[in-house]
Formats: sequence, structure tokens, C-alpha cells
Amino acid sequence: MSQAFKINANAEPYTDLPPIFARLLEAKAHKGLSFEAIGKAIDHDEVWVAALFYGQAKATPEELAKLGELLEIPTTSLTAEIGEDWFPRRGLGPVPPQDPLLYRLFEGVLVYGTPIKALIHEKFGDGIMSMIDCKVNVERKAHPKGDRVVLTFDGKFLPYLRW
Amino acid sequence: MSQAFKINANAEPYTDLPPIFARLLEAKAHKGLSFEAIGKAIDHDEVWVAALFYGQAKATPEELAKLGELLEIPTTSLTAEIGEDWFPRRGLGPVPPQDPLLYRLFEGVLVYGTPIKALIHEKFGDGIMSMIDCKVNVERKAHPKGDRVVLTFDGKFLPYLRW
Amino acid sequence: MSQAFKINANAEPYTDLPPIFARLLEAKAHKGLSFEAIGKAIDHDEVWVAALFYGQAKATPEELAKLGELLEIPTTSLTAEIGEDWFPRRGLGPVPPQDPLLYRLFEGVLVYGTPIKALIHEKFGDGIMSMIDCKVNVERKAHPKGDRVVLTFDGKFLPYLRW
Amino acid sequence: MSQAFKINANAEPYTDLPPIFARLLEAKAHKGLSFEAIGKAIDHDEVWVAALFYGQAKATPEELAKLGELLEIPTTSLTAEIGEDWFPRRGLGPVPPQDPLLYRLFEGVLVYGTPIKALIHEKFGDGIMSMIDCKVNVERKAHPKGDRVVLTFDGKFLPYLRW
Amino acid sequence: MSQAFKINANAEPYTDLPPIFARLLEAKAHKGLSFEAIGKAIDHDEVWVAALFYGQAKATPEELAKLGELLEIPTTSLTAEIGEDWFPRRGLGPVPPQDPLLYRLFEGVLVYGTPIKALIHEKFGDGIMSMIDCKVNVERKAHPKGDRVVLTFDGKFLPYLRW
Amino acid sequence: MSQAFKINANAEPYTDLPPIFARLLEAKAHKGLSFEAIGKAIDHDEVWVAALFYGQAKATPEELAKLGELLEIPTTSLTAEIGEDWFPRRGLGPVPPQDPLLYRLFEGVLVYGTPIKALIHEKFGDGIMSMIDCKVNVERKAHPKGDRVVLTFDGKFLPYLRW
Amino acid sequence: MSQAFKINANAEPYTDLPPIFARLLEAKAHKGLSFEAIGKAIDHDEVWVAALFYGQAKATPEELAKLGELLEIPTTSLTAEIGEDWFPRRGLGPVPPQDPLLYRLFEGVLVYGTPIKALIHEKFGDGIMSMIDCKVNVERKAHPKGDRVVLTFDGKFLPYLRW
Amino acid sequence: MSQAFKINANAEPYTDLPPIFARLLEAKAHKGLSFEAIGKAIDHDEVWVAALFYGQAKATPEELAKLGELLEIPTTSLTAEIGEDWFPRRGLGPVPPQDPLLYRLFEGVLVYGTPIKALIHEKFGDGIMSMIDCKVNVERKAHPKGDRVVLTFDGKFLPYLRW
Amino acid sequence: MSQAFKINANAEPYTDLPPIFARLLEAKAHKGLSFEAIGKAIDHDEVWVAALFYGQAKATPEELAKLGELLEIPTTSLTAEIGEDWFPRRGLGPVPPQDPLLYRLFEGVLVYGTPIKALIHEKFGDGIMSMIDCKVNVERKAHPKGDRVVLTFDGKFLPYLRW
Amino acid sequence: MSQAFKINANAEPYTDLPPIFARLLEAKAHKGLSFEAIGKAIDHDEVWVAALFYGQAKATPEELAKLGELLEIPTTSLTAEIGEDWFPRRGLGPVPPQDPLLYRLFEGVLVYGTPIKALIHEKFGDGIMSMIDCKVNVERKAHPKGDRVVLTFDGKFLPYLRW
Repeated sequence: MSQAFKINANAEPYTDLPPIFARLLEAKAHKGLSFEAIGKAIDHDEVWVAALFYGQAKATPEELAKLGELLEIPTTSLTAEIGEDWFPRRGLGPVPPQDPLLYRLFEGVLVYGTPIKALIHEKFGDGIMSMIDCKVNVERKAHPKGDRVVLTFDGKFLPYLRW
Repeated sequence: MSQAFKINANAEPYTDLPPIFARLLEAKAHKGLSFEAIGKAIDHDEVWVAALFYGQAKATPEELAKLGELLEIPTTSLTAEIGEDWFPRRGLGPVPPQDPLLYRLFEGVLVYGTPIKALIHEKFGDGIMSMIDCKVNVERKAHPKGDRVVLTFDGKFLPYLRW
Repeated sequence: MSQAFKINANAEPYTDLPPIFARLLEAKAHKGLSFEAIGKAIDHDEVWVAALFYGQAKATPEELAKLGELLEIPTTSLTAEIGEDWFPRRGLGPVPPQDPLLYRLFEGVLVYGTPIKALIHEKFGDGIMSMIDCKVNVERKAHPKGDRVVLTFDGKFLPYLRW
Repeated sequence: MSQAFKINANAEPYTDLPPIFARLLEAKAHKGLSFEAIGKAIDHDEVWVAALFYGQAKATPEELAKLGELLEIPTTSLTAEIGEDWFPRRGLGPVPPQDPLLYRLFEGVLVYGTPIKALIHEKFGDGIMSMIDCKVNVERKAHPKGDRVVLTFDGKFLPYLRW
Repeated sequence: MSQAFKINANAEPYTDLPPIFARLLEAKAHKGLSFEAIGKAIDHDEVWVAALFYGQAKATPEELAKLGELLEIPTTSLTAEIGEDWFPRRGLGPVPPQDPLLYRLFEGVLVYGTPIKALIHEKFGDGIMSMIDCKVNVERKAHPKGDRVVLTFDGKFLPYLRW
Repeated sequence: MSQAFKINANAEPYTDLPPIFARLLEAKAHKGLSFEAIGKAIDHDEVWVAALFYGQAKATPEELAKLGELLEIPTTSLTAEIGEDWFPRRGLGPVPPQDPLLYRLFEGVLVYGTPIKALIHEKFGDGIMSMIDCKVNVERKAHPKGDRVVLTFDGKFLPYLRW
Repeated sequence: MSQAFKINANAEPYTDLPPIFARLLEAKAHKGLSFEAIGKAIDHDEVWVAALFYGQAKATPEELAKLGELLEIPTTSLTAEIGEDWFPRRGLGPVPPQDPLLYRLFEGVLVYGTPIKALIHEKFGDGIMSMIDCKVNVERKAHPKGDRVVLTFDGKFLPYLRW
Repeated sequence: MSQAFKINANAEPYTDLPPIFARLLEAKAHKGLSFEAIGKAIDHDEVWVAALFYGQAKATPEELAKLGELLEIPTTSLTAEIGEDWFPRRGLGPVPPQDPLLYRLFEGVLVYGTPIKALIHEKFGDGIMSMIDCKVNVERKAHPKGDRVVLTFDGKFLPYLRW
Repeated sequence: MSQAFKINANAEPYTDLPPIFARLLEAKAHKGLSFEAIGKAIDHDEVWVAALFYGQAKATPEELAKLGELLEIPTTSLTAEIGEDWFPRRGLGPVPPQDPLLYRLFEGVLVYGTPIKALIHEKFGDGIMSMIDCKVNVERKAHPKGDRVVLTFDGKFLPYLRW
Repeated sequence: MSQAFKINANAEPYTDLPPIFARLLEAKAHKGLSFEAIGKAIDHDEVWVAALFYGQAKATPEELAKLGELLEIPTTSLTAEIGEDWFPRRGLGPVPPQDPLLYRLFEGVLVYGTPIKALIHEKFGDGIMSMIDCKVNVERKAHPKGDRVVLTFDGKFLPYLRW
């Protein structure tokens, strides 16, 4: 089992989240579980689990019950704070982001934004790529000059309604 | 051959770009060429070509010469405006972006930003995903409930230097 | 009766509101009542009730008394915190909104804003649509390709005074 | 036929639009046509037509041809500037909007935003109301104390993907 | 007759206005007419006239005809640029305002804003003071220690609709 | 005597003010006194009193003593928190203001700002209207179509020094 | 006589000013006159003259006539552009200022702002220091370790009105 | 000895400062000492002392010891909180400043900024006026039409290095 | 051993950091150790150590253990708060920075930014200078006219990927 | 001699600069000269020359004459536009910078800003590092894993004046 871990709940991104999230992340660290391992226990992809652990996704009561059991957190605490009546956070945080890793994602998506838009327009027509009906994937790919992060967004194309 | 096309150079994203870009995009439309077709002619991926056509990438003199030939634009115009002495734009445009498609990319990368960061940290350690040593891909994936856009960023992991 | 529910009063939109609002929403969840059901008890539309529950509308002492009885909250707490001397919040929250649902409402109203203005001008002349003398409605409309939200604003036209 | 009309193309919202839009609006004024009348000619709702006339929607080549005929504008001008290769503007304009009518729409949607979100969550679950697969309607409703504007958004509910 | 006057149309507040406004103000200076004198000719208060001359109000065709005659500007120019199809500007300009006089008005209304709101609430209840159904007056009042500006807003009280 | 009233001191405009202001306003509500009634007791206009109660004006020790007696608050609390050594707040609050009533005052003063400036220039010459040597008045004026708020600023004209 | 000088009228602070200002400053350079020398000719302090030359002060017709004669600029150009009907600019420019010299003035006044306020309060009571009834002075003071700039503001104290 | 004084440490400018500053200012008020009187005790100008009391300057251990003695505050509290290891605040506070007195200083320095810069350039050449090697003075000057504040900045001229 | 030191954890830059950082800096002051001396104990450069002490770098468990021993802080506190599961802060703080020293660094890097970019482009081609694979150095250099700070960034050049 | 080069003067950073700068940079490209080569001709370091070529430094008349000769630009054009009466730009450009290279410099200086400040404080005491009396150096350093940029700022330490 990994070392103890204590979150500073006064710092980004915890300030806007119910306190149970700090407890979830501390328990994950304490148990030494990866997001993938937790994902297997609740039958979800590791990115979705990470989104859940930062308040950006919403679990069902059954999933919360499994999580509670796995991480030894009372299910009633989980359902009271992030159960059916809870709205996920889904905020953007500070814009532009101050964190260097987030800033670079943001820069990447904006520097290449119009080219991506032009290609979507060329391949699909007038519409957008949904970030609601969308799944995200993060892979480590070995490479002799330094391993690479492969980040994928797989989202439904939505054409503009004409009425 | 496709219809004529005339760009309003006073609107985003053309305002900051050399006038040759409007000419490149008008010529592409006039010839009815896809970014993929142009990419084949200059031996680059279609996303990189789209980035070049919106001032976000830089071509070599040889590539400019091939482009000029393909699109019937004098090479001297291309090298004078976007040749070796030119700095690509690589600006972000307005933040947050006003365009609905760009906004959704931006929202996606920020809503899922901390989860993605947590996974990169879990898989690689303390560092960032490079958007400089990075390639971008856009695919159309058929789906019975509506086709999907698959957008991929493949960037090198860079650990923080400790000295 | 539904599960317990505990609001994180440090997050948007609770931070600016008197603490009684968290208690109202927790009691609503605990009782398992819909906004419509509460609306019937105090003779108001469900949207107005939801506005009241988020500090954006103001109830009379009689309405507060009925609410207190229905939700088992002492009327004196309600009248002390959100009674006659209280100013409703009616703030906009962060602009642009970070929540994806709110952002899309905001985008919709601004993307279609000038067209809507042009039609109001065409149909009524020089003036505005009141958001003070206005009622709002939210309906679920069944649709074979996915149910739809029908959101209606019904506001008085106010011509500019000429003096 | 109505009086002449000359648009100041240096002011909002014309600055970001191709010059053909000023010509379209001047021709509409010159012909004395309402958006509804133009809508009948191209088989669209008046709000969609108004959106088209302010660069917020995209017409097909056939629709542009009919518009050109109706308003006596050469179709080649229309297809060159706002034909297939054109990206509609769909920008928000200044945020918050300075125009009093637009500001009030913006205020209405934000003041009532969280209540609307709470009702959508209650009626549909975790998701958003699409502003892409959405139609907008503006009606004048007679009322003895002053006529009213009835503004309706009818958008598809999109649940968040869970993967 | 007064001296010639030439407006710098590239500076605030002229940049967003149709060019006819510079012409109106130059003609007013050239004729040496006060806003009051012009108001008498078109049967309006001097503040309303000043609002019209800065693009913040809208005249009828008959009023434009009288103005054209008075200031020797062709009526057709007036009706083409600021006639029936024109939307008045009604923008706020830069916020906070940079002009010292405007800044002080802005400061006054905001420093005393909550006290004014508290008094309106005390005297009228829950609602706002309309700036649409509102008239404005500016008077010079003699005073031994220095003359004073008396600025009055007379606007309709609008109670919030409860539905 | 009126009902109890409890202020949420974590919300605008209380966050920046000494805690004694919540106590003053709660006592005013508890006693059921109007600003006018309090004004009579300390020999000031009701708007000045409202300004004092929201931290925007400064009372003398004698006035604080009378206030303490009237509202049954120990004078020592008043003089310690808002006595001679205290700086009044006089802040603008968030800009633009989020409160609909404050926003409309702000909009009114800015939309009519340049016309007001032009009239002051016409009547007085180059200078400003003081908001320091200024008094503010709020009246309810009966009107058959709905009562009106008459808001007056009476401020000294200050010419620019030329040296 | 000094060399020719040509102003780039598209850069700060010229963009908001009538074109006559570039001409004034070019003529001053061409004649090789200091602000002090010009001040002697029109009987004003050099700082006031510099303010006039950057559009921040207003001259009388007589002063403009003397200026025209001194700098060989037709008086009619001066009176048409910056005569009686002209409003001086008096804008702040970008905030915070980007120019290093202006930034340091801005920093100085804000870093020492509260201490200065506390001293004014101690010496005068509740009020402000007028920047309208104010004169400004800039002196060079010799000093063995490097000469010093002595910058003085001499403004009237204005107490807050109590009514 | 003056009355008690109690600072609201949650308001500007105290929020960013160590708590000892509230204690210093409360002690100064309690003792009824002016900044000048304190300055004499620690051999500094009154403006420097006021800067110290608002966290904008740094005292030596000896000066803190004298201050502690004078104001009856334990020297160990002073050295622990604002001793050698402490960084003075030297922040600008909100920009633009909301306080009317600070705003006017800010306005004065920016409205007259370019004229001041032009004179420094004329008298010294290409460089800036230091706000680090700078002293500030505030004087009350009697005047029959109302006393005046004379505010002086005396800062070293620093030429740009050329290398 | 140096004097006691107590950090105000409510001020920048401590607000976003785990509380252990205040303890680290207080212990460093208490022990009278320089960053260089601490660096020797954990085999790192003094700038890296300072970065670690302000939450901008990440230590290994072994380094934390050595730090704990040196500064007499329990290692378990260090590993719980800033151990393996902790994300360093790496935020920018307020932009533009309010601190005069930080502002000048910021000004220097931006005023000279484009020249630096032009030289990197000239010497290396199209790419950036990494701030991830980068080390920073601060030296005191004696100089007869006043000692100088020599600040060095040594970062890897990263060419843009072309694909 | 290198190829022709044509600058888009409507894009950053040329928009605020006199047109002569585009001509200087085009001539430099046309002649195929490095900044170092130009520096040798006018006896300055290459970074200072690059600063001069982007409007961030100021040359003497003699230096302008040499530049004119070297680049075949009439000296009178140079002295008229950027001679003695010209103020260098020295603006920061957009903040935060949109260019990825500039952004990384900005991020580096801010992420490491407080550590750098702490070291300067430790080594020099209370003061700042001058960016006015400062020289900048850019070197290419060969490295087996990829060459590195060594960027140095060498600025005078300035202690705060105490008076």
C-alpha cells in the first residue's frame, strides 16, 4: 500500500468541488490504485474514471456503491455529496489555464483549431464535433526518441438544424 | 472545377495573416482540391496542410514551389510572403473562442484537462505533453447513429528538468 | 422518500446565496419533490419555483410559510433570511458561463441575438423585450430521434420613450 | 417599394461579415420585404432567414440562387462570398453585449440559467440542450396591457456519453 | 454663424456610427445652433436631441425631414443612413469609460447604486427602474459657490412578473 | 415591529464592509424604520442615510451616537468600526454590475453619457460634473400608467484648471 | 532648425486624436522648439502645453491663433479640428499602460496610493484631491549620483458633500 | 488618547497583508499619533511611514524595535511577521482602482502621462523615471479658494542601456 | 540561528500552496540557511531549491527525507503534502504580475521577446525554447557602479514537428 | 543575396510601428545579413540590433546613417521616422502573449518568478533587478541531445529608497 496523501482543498481544482473528492483521491493514493484498476471495478474506461474523480462526470448509485466498497468510503457519504441530486462541476477552471500541461493542450487545440474546423467542414459539412457525445482516450506509446502521449477525442458530428 | 470563392480578409482568422493565404484558399476552392489531395502533392498529412493554409505551419522553399505549381500561384509571391523570413502566426485567436466548433474543442480539452493531466502523471510522471513535437489527425468514422469525428494528438512527453 | 443530499455551499451558485437555499434544496431532494409539485403547493409555475430555489425570485411571507410547512423548515428561518427585507440575487454568475449547459443557452441567445433583434424590430419597432415582465417555460417534447427541450420566454415589448 | 437604406459596414455586426451581407440587407429594405416573405420564397422560417441575413446560418446553392433572383443580386456574387466554401460567422459579438435588447436576452438566459438547468436535469437527467440541433421562433402576441414577444428555443436533449 | 468644425471620425464615439452623424454635428456647429434650438424645431427635449445626434435615439421620417431642412442636409442622406431600417447604436462605449466626465457619472451611479436600489425597494418593492421608458434632463442651476449641474432620470418602475 | 432579518455577510455588497453594517441593516429592519425616518433622527436626507448604511458615506461621532441610540446598538461598536479612523468603502462593486437594477442605472448613464456630456459642454464649457460635491435624490412620482422613479444628481460644475 | 520628423499616426497615442496633432508635433520638431519655448509664446506652463499637444487640454481661439502663427500652421485648420466644438481626448490609454515610463508612474501612484490617501485623510479629512482643479510640474534636479525628475501634482482638496 | 478603532481585515487593502498591520494601525489610532509623529520617532518621512503601515515599505530590525516600543506592540511580533524574511506587498491593488481618491491619482497620472513622458524625453533623453529610487511627499498648502494637496514624486532618471 | 519568521498564508503566493510550504520557509528562516546551503544538502542548484520551496518543482521521496532531517520537519508531513501524488503548482500568479520585481522580469521578457524570437529563428530555425527542459541561474556580479543580477535561462531548442 | 521578403504590416508586431521597420526588415532579408553582421557595422550586440529592428530600442543619428548606408535606405527616411523625436515602442504586445515562443518565455519568467525574487532578496536585499540598465544575450550552445538556447539578462540591482 502506498504512502499517505493529503490534498490541499483550498487550491485549484478542489475549491469548487464537494469535499468527498479530496477523500476519493486520497483513498486512491492510499490504496495505490491506478485509474485503470478502478475503472475495471466499475466497468468504465480510465479517462472516464479520472473525469469522475475530478468532478467532471457523474456516476450512478450502483457505481458509487462499488467505489465506496473498493476505496472503503461509506456509500452514504458518496451518494449524499455526489449522488443523483448533484450537478457535476464541468467548469473550465481559469482561462487561459495557468498549469503548463493544461496550457499546452489549450494551445494545441487553438493553434490547430481552424485547420481542424476546415477539415471537419470538408469531410462532414456545416456542423460541430460534439463534446457531450464524446469519449476521450490517453495512451502511452513507446518511441526510441522519447515516449509519446496519444490523446484521442471521439465525438459525434452534429449538423446545424435548418428550419 | 468548383465555383469561385472570395474570402473576406477583414474577418477572423485572416486579419493577422499575409494576403497570400486568402489567395491560397481561394485557389484551393477554385481547383476543387481537398487538403488530402494537396497533401499528396507536397508529401504531408492533410492536417499539416490545413495548418499551413491557415498560417499555423511553415513550408520549405521546395514545398512552396510545388504548391505554387499545383495552385497556379507564382512561387515568388509565396516565397516573398511566407518564405524563409516569415514567422508563422500560431496565434490562438480570441480566447475563449467565439466559433461554436472551436469553443467545443476548447471546452473538451479544459473540462477533461485535469483528468488527462492526472493520467499523464500516472503513466509518465512529472512533465508535459509537447504541442511542438506533436502531430494531429482528423478522421471520419462511420457510425449507425451518426458518423463521428476522431481527433488525435500524438505528442512527445517532456519530463521537467531537475538541476 | 429519496436519499439524503448535501450541498457544497462553497461552489457556484451557492456562494453568494443565504445558507437557507442549500437547506431548501436539500429538503426538496430529501422529500423527493419535483419543482412542479412544489409549485402546486404555492400556486406558481415550476420555473418560477426553480428560480426561487436558486435565489433568483422573491416569495411573499405567505408563500414562505407554505414552503416551510411543505419542506419542514421553520418559517422563521425562511423569513429571516429571504423574507421582505431580502434582495434576491439575480446575478449572472461568471461570464461567459463555465457550465456547458449554461454556456449553450448563452451561445444560442447570442448567436441568434441579432436575428431575433431584427425580427422584434420588424414586428414591433424600436424597443426591447422585457426580462422583468417576462415568464419562462421549460417543456419536454417527445421526439422519435431524441426528446427535445422547448424553452420559452414570454416578455412584454417596451418601446423607447421619446420626449 | 420602401426607401433607400445604406448600412455602415464599419459597425457591429457587419465588421466581421463579407460585404455581401450589407447588400442583402439593403436590398431587403429597398424591396420592402419582411423576413417572413423572404422565408416563403426559399422555404424557411423567418428566424432562420434572419440568421442567414446576419451571417449566422448557411444557405445551399439553390437557396442562394432563389435569393439572388428575389433581391436582384447576381447569384455569382452570393456564391462567391457565402457559398459552399464559406464558414458562417456564428460569433457571439462583444460579451457582455452592449446593445440593450441583446443585453436583456443575455441577462434573461443567465439569471434564469440555473433554474432552467435544474429543470432540464429533473426532466431529462445529466446532459445539455443542443443549440446546434435547435430551432428558434419569435412571435408577437397581442395583450391588453401591451403586446408581448414570445421567444422559443426548441433544441434536442443530448445526454453525456459514459464510456 | 459659428466657425467651421471638423470631426475626427476615427475616435470615440464616432467610430461605430454612420458617417451622417459627423455631418449633423458639424452642421450644428456651423449653424451655431444649441440642442435646445434644434429641439424646438423638431418638438423634442434637448437631451433627446443630443441623444439623437450621438446615435442613441431614433427619429421618425418627418423629424429627419425637418432636421435636414434646418441643417441644410439632404433628407435622402438622412433617411438612407438613419431612417426606418437603421438600428440606433445604444452602445455603452468602453467600460469603464475613459472620459473623465463620463467616468464620474459612472462612479456616481455605482457608488450610490446600492443605496438607490435600497430606496427603490423600500418605496416600490421588488423591481427595477426602466431606462427604456425613461426621460433624462440636464439643467444649469446658479449657485454662489459655483453653478451646479442638475441631472434627472425619470423612469417607470417595473415590478418583477410572478407566474 | 417588523420581523427578524438576517443578512448573508458573504454576499455582495457586505463582503468588503465592516460587520457593523449588517447589524445596522438588521436593526433597521427589526425596528421597521424607513431611511427617511432614520434621516430625520440624524438630520440627513434619506439617500445620504442609505449611502451611510451601505458604507458609502461617513458619519460624525455625534451622528453615530444618535444612530446607536435609535437602533439600540452600542455607540462604542459604531465608533470603533466606522468612526473617525475608518475609510468609507466607496467602491464600485463588480463592473459591469450583475444586479439588474444597478445594471440599468449603469446602462442609462452610459447610453446617455455622451449626450449629457455634450449638453454640459454646451451650457458650462470644458469641465466635469462633480460626484464629490454632489447630492442624490430618489422620489416616487405617481403616474396613471404606472408610478415612476425620479432620480436626481445635483453636482457642482468644475472647470479644468489652465496653468 | 532641427531635422524633419514624421509621426506614425496609426500608433498610440495618435490613433484617437484629430490629425492636426501629428502636424503640431511635427512642426514643433521641425522648428526645434521646446515645450517651454512654446509655453512662453502662449503664456502657459510647459506641462500644460505638452498636455495640449497630446490632446489632453483645450486652448482658446486666441491661443490657437498664436500657435498657428508660431508653428506656421493655418489657424483655420486648428480651429476646425481642435477649436471650441472639440472635446479634448483625456483618455487613459491602455490600462495597465504598456509603455515602461508610463507604467512606472502608474505603479508609483498605486503602490503609494493608500499611504497617500491615509495622509490626505489625516491632514484634510474625508474627501479627494482634484485632478480637474490641478496643475502638474516636471523639473530636472541635478544630483551627483544621477539627475532626478521632480514631478508635482498640485490639486484642490474636495470634501464629500453631506446632505 | 483617541477612541478605539477596529479594522475589518477582510477588506482591501488588508486582505493581502500580515495581521500585524491591522494591529499597527489600530495602535496608531488608539495612541492618537500622526504619521509625522511616528516618523520622528523612527527618523523617517511621514509618507515613508504611511507606506510602511500599509505594507509597501520595509523597516530594519532597529526601526521595528522602536515602533514596538512607541506603539506598545511586542517587537517579536513585529519581527516575526514583517522582519528580515518578509517581502513587502507592493501590489497595485485592483486595477483600475475602485476608491475615488486612488482613481483620481490614477487618472491624473495617465491623462498627463504622455505629456510628462514627452517632457522627460525633452529634458533627459531616452529613459524612465525610477519609482524604486524615488521619494514621495504630501503637503497641505493653504489657499483662499480651498486648501490644496501638493503631491511630489522625486525619482532618479535612468537612461536605457545600449550595449 | 536567525529570528523567528511567520508567514501570512492568506497572501500571494501561499494561498494556492499546501500549508507545508509556509512551514518549510519558516524553518529555513529559523535555521538561517540559504537556498544554496539547502541545495548542497540535497544535491541541487539553489534556483531549483527556491522553485521547490515555492511549490514550482517536485522533489523525490529521498530528497524530502533529507529536507525533513535538515529542517527538522517530520518526513511524513512532507510526503503526505508534497510527495509522489502531489501536483506542483506551476501557476503564473496574477497576470500582469503586481509585484514590482516580477513585473520587471515580465516586462523585460516581453519588451525583448520579439527580438529574442527573431534571433532564435535566425540561429535555430522554426521552433521554440523549452521552459520544461530548462535550467535557471541567478548570480550576483560585482560592478563598480552597483552590483548586477545575472539571470540565465538554459533551455533546449525544440523544432516544430512536420508530418 | 537572399530572396525577396514582404512583411504583412497589418499583423503583430508591425501594426504599432512606423512603416520604416518593415522596410528595415525586408532590406535585411534581401541583403541576407544576420543581426550579428549588422551589429558589427554599427558597433552593437546582435540582441540590441534585433531590439532596434522591432522598435524596442533607439539609435543615434550616426547609427541611423550607417544603417541607411548598409541597407541602402535613405538616411532621411530613417531620421524622419525613428530619429531623435521618435519614442521607441517598448510595448508588451498582447498579454498573455499568443505566440508559442513568447508564451514560453513569459511562462518561464513567471513560474520561476518568485524563486528568482527570493534569491535576489537573499543575495542583495530589498530591491529589484533593472530592465532599463540591462543587457540581454542569446547564445546557441551545442548539446548531444539537442542544442540549447542560453538566454541571459544582466541587469543592475536597484535597492528601494528609504527616506
